[in-house]
Amino acid sequence: MTDDLPSSEPPASRTPPAVAVVDAQSPGNVGTIARAMKNFGFEDLLLVDPPELDPDGEAYGFAGHAREDVLPNADEISFDYLVENYHTIGCTAVTNEDDNSHMRFPYSTPADLADRLPTVEAPTALVFGRERVGLTNEELARIDEICSIPANADYPVLNLGQAATITLYELRSLTLDETQLPDLERVRAPEPTVDRLYDQWGALLEELNHPDEKQDKTMRMVRRVFGRADVTEREANTLLGVLRRATERPAENSDSV
Amino acid sequence: MTDDLPSSEPPASRTPPAVAVVDAQSPGNVGTIARAMKNFGFEDLLLVDPPELDPDGEAYGFAGHAREDVLPNADEISFDYLVENYHTIGCTAVTNEDDNSHMRFPYSTPADLADRLPTVEAPTALVFGRERVGLTNEELARIDEICSIPANADYPVLNLGQAATITLYELRSLTLDETQLPDLERVRAPEPTVDRLYDQWGALLEELNHPDEKQDKTMRMVRRVFGRADVTEREANTLLGVLRRATERPAENSDSV
Repeated sequence: MTDDLPSSEPPASRTPPAVAVVDAQSPGNVGTIARAMKNFGFEDLLLVDPPELDPDGEAYGFAGHAREDVLPNADEISFDYLVENYHTIGCTAVTNEDDNSHMRFPYSTPADLADRLPTVEAPTALVFGRERVGLTNEELARIDEICSIPANADYPVLNLGQAATITLYELRSLTLDETQLPDLERVRAPEPTVDRLYDQWGALLEELNHPDEKQDKTMRMVRRVFGRADVTEREANTLLGVLRRATERPAENSDSV
Repeated sequence: MTDDLPSSEPPASRTPPAVAVVDAQSPGNVGTIARAMKNFGFEDLLLVDPPELDPDGEAYGFAGHAREDVLPNADEISFDYLVENYHTIGCTAVTNEDDNSHMRFPYSTPADLADRLPTVEAPTALVFGRERVGLTNEELARIDEICSIPANADYPVLNLGQAATITLYELRSLTLDETQLPDLERVRAPEPTVDRLYDQWGALLEELNHPDEKQDKTMRMVRRVFGRADVTEREANTLLGVLRRATERPAENSDSV
């Protein structure tokens, strides 16, 4: 945390959105938001009227690895500075029903923003309000657009940390070139391997004297099961080995002594 | 919370997935998960080796309105009961790189599950592990499939409550027929209204003696700005009124005294 004005100018174009938290009461929520930022590749945390963030307290306790960078590098700014220097997107669970009031309407969902923001170059901030009441109408009136997370009509009000987590998750395409997950499509078994697996099933059924009239139907079932499962090459080869041994095992009567 | 076995049988087909939390250490995380369940329409919370959930403690404090139903109705069950009675989907940040090990591979993302689960009828449970280490390899070995949230390759490990929140958000289509958000498409302004808005811009430009050679280009700009903004009928009518007054106002020299 630095002093009242950020040490640097607002970010250049094409920087991922900053995350601004206005008047949070709970240090734990600030830490939770910092962790979500780190999990989804966001770096610039802006704090308006934050609670005290004790390095031994809940903010750092909840921040995970973000305690090393996102949280200590956060900038404390004023709400005026925020709205004057950023395109601001205010997050709220409560929208207006229609355009009789423009305070909370129209809105975008986080998924809508993920589609649209990559086409705009400008310093942008996602703005989250205090616990319980969120952003006030007075604050929302100064904000450029509204974002709302679709949720249960009977209880759409999310906890502050959870709302920020979902929003940052949805916007990860703005920040992450790749995730921790390996590409699955590369490892689906090649068709010749899958065909050998089906052939071996056929050989096993024959060896088991499966009734001729049921053979085709059972083979279609086999094909459907393994087709749906998108078996990997190793899975297919392991199954193939097991089926081959089952097919080639000595008949029962030569086993029994 | 009831005694060791659930009061009811596993749910009938087409019930939304249950949410199972294994060996959570922090009551606050159980409360956070219960709140996310209520926010996204899930009802059945299954707890394996839970911490004590004091009605005056963090579990109830973090649960929001879920303190009224999801949390007090939670069933305490054994891990054996869980894997024997449900199709289990284990959530973990750490997957294997390929099919050399089947412990954490292949995986589905929450978005993949949202596509696939509606086509399957069977009692299903989303299973989340304890803080820090998640589900153990021994537990994952007994679980039917793996789910992983795409995140920052440098720091993909989410907090337990945040991981559950994102997963339930992604699976909301299984539970919610409608959200709190009104349908936006119904309120985009009708084209005749938008055309009147453009005509009024044209009239204003003419009244302002906008150079003839720039008129077409400026009108295309106007059309692009309002076209992109998907203005609502009320927005269009308000703008139309303002522009009409600007167009029809007395010329400047008749104003000045």
